[in-house]
Amino acid sequence: MATGRLVEVYLDLLSQPCRAVHILLNCAKIPHRVRTVALRKGEQTPDFTRLNPMQKVPVMVDDGFVLTESDAILKYLATKYYVPEHWYPRQPERRARVDEYTAWHHSNTRPHAAKVFILEVLLPAQSGSPVEEVRLVRALSQLDDTLGKLESMFLRRQPFLCGDDITVADLLAVCELMQPVGSGRDILLGRPQLQSWRSRVQSAVGDAFDQAHAILYAIRDRLTAGGVSYL
Amino acid sequence: MATGRLVEVYLDLLSQPCRAVHILLNCAKIPHRVRTVALRKGEQTPDFTRLNPMQKVPVMVDDGFVLTESDAILKYLATKYYVPEHWYPRQPERRARVDEYTAWHHSNTRPHAAKVFILEVLLPAQSGSPVEEVRLVRALSQLDDTLGKLESMFLRRQPFLCGDDITVADLLAVCELMQPVGSGRDILLGRPQLQSWRSRVQSAVGDAFDQAHAILYAIRDRLTAGGVSYL
Repeated sequence: MATGRLVEVYLDLLSQPCRAVHILLNCAKIPHRVRTVALRKGEQTPDFTRLNPMQKVPVMVDDGFVLTESDAILKYLATKYYVPEHWYPRQPERRARVDEYTAWHHSNTRPHAAKVFILEVLLPAQSGSPVEEVRLVRALSQLDDTLGKLESMFLRRQPFLCGDDITVADLLAVCELMQPVGSGRDILLGRPQLQSWRSRVQSAVGDAFDQAHAILYAIRDRLTAGGVSYL
Repeated sequence: MATGRLVEVYLDLLSQPCRAVHILLNCAKIPHRVRTVALRKGEQTPDFTRLNPMQKVPVMVDDGFVLTESDAILKYLATKYYVPEHWYPRQPERRARVDEYTAWHHSNTRPHAAKVFILEVLLPAQSGSPVEEVRLVRALSQLDDTLGKLESMFLRRQPFLCGDDITVADLLAVCELMQPVGSGRDILLGRPQLQSWRSRVQSAVGDAFDQAHAILYAIRDRLTAGGVSYL
């Protein structure tokens, strides 16, 4: 591990994958500096665009090495900074379980949970139009299918998604499943198995969980108080 | 590396990610046995369903260890079977480049190239209806955006997607971009940079490329001869 320098991360904590990176950095006590980029407010500066021409967060800069994609950033940090082994096991079969979930995640948990938040919070806030109910019902049904698979496949015989201990896979998943909370919707209601898993993840990461989710809680509180979102 | 036993893989070579696994196994000369599962023909047996309740291919079984998701299978095989280093570099920054592309792949190259094939070949073959032109035009436009990013971001300064040599990322990408060939459409026409990259990948993997794509070529030949697909 290099000493005396800080990993820089460009994050918007309203973005689910950014929160996963934020939690790992804090939990594993990796020396870092957060640079906030609120993409939703048009805060992408020319400097940021040079760093990531795709203009997406998170972006990590480690001693001049620029990396995008939360999945890759989490695995790089776990490898480079010798975080506790359980986050991204080195044993090939155990590591493969994490890679298996993260690959699945990109086409399942991520798009399906994100879509509910986009339809219920983001689009109405941007357009001023009411929620499109037909699309929301369809999105909730797709999300329900994904939640069913998380319970029946990944959590069937184990406390965390990839085994007996928490991994970066749990961070990516929990941050996605928290996103609809922004509209006051807890999608895990009626899913005790996923609720217990979420509690285990929260216990495992401690204060880092609420620190990463503070912005989302604030949006929920404004919306559920009948106010407008400050998105 | 374990000796005397074979890795078993359940593949349908009409599936892009299956072809990527097939190419790596042959190229790196990993002792293996292919079990063909033509999911499109309803060939999922109770045995296969027990192996992967999600009923998707590819599935790998290595000495009792069952793994799904091509991305995870490729990385596991590269690690466990000590294939040449370049396929999945161990140096953290170089490995992170592969993980960065594969994460991006799942939300870009994969869905956008697959959609063109689904709209142009799969749906018409299954329903007997003509191609839905409006949806196809939209899918082609999204694919064009992805192709542009592959050229301007990933291949901007290097011969392969993640550096100077071929990696598992190139296999996943090339197999997706070959898929629309099934309808006689070469989506890389007018994209000389991607064409050169595809040639480099073909040269690097040799005969394994055409072996993996034989079924796709057969479908193309039937369709372009005016016949019906045998999907």
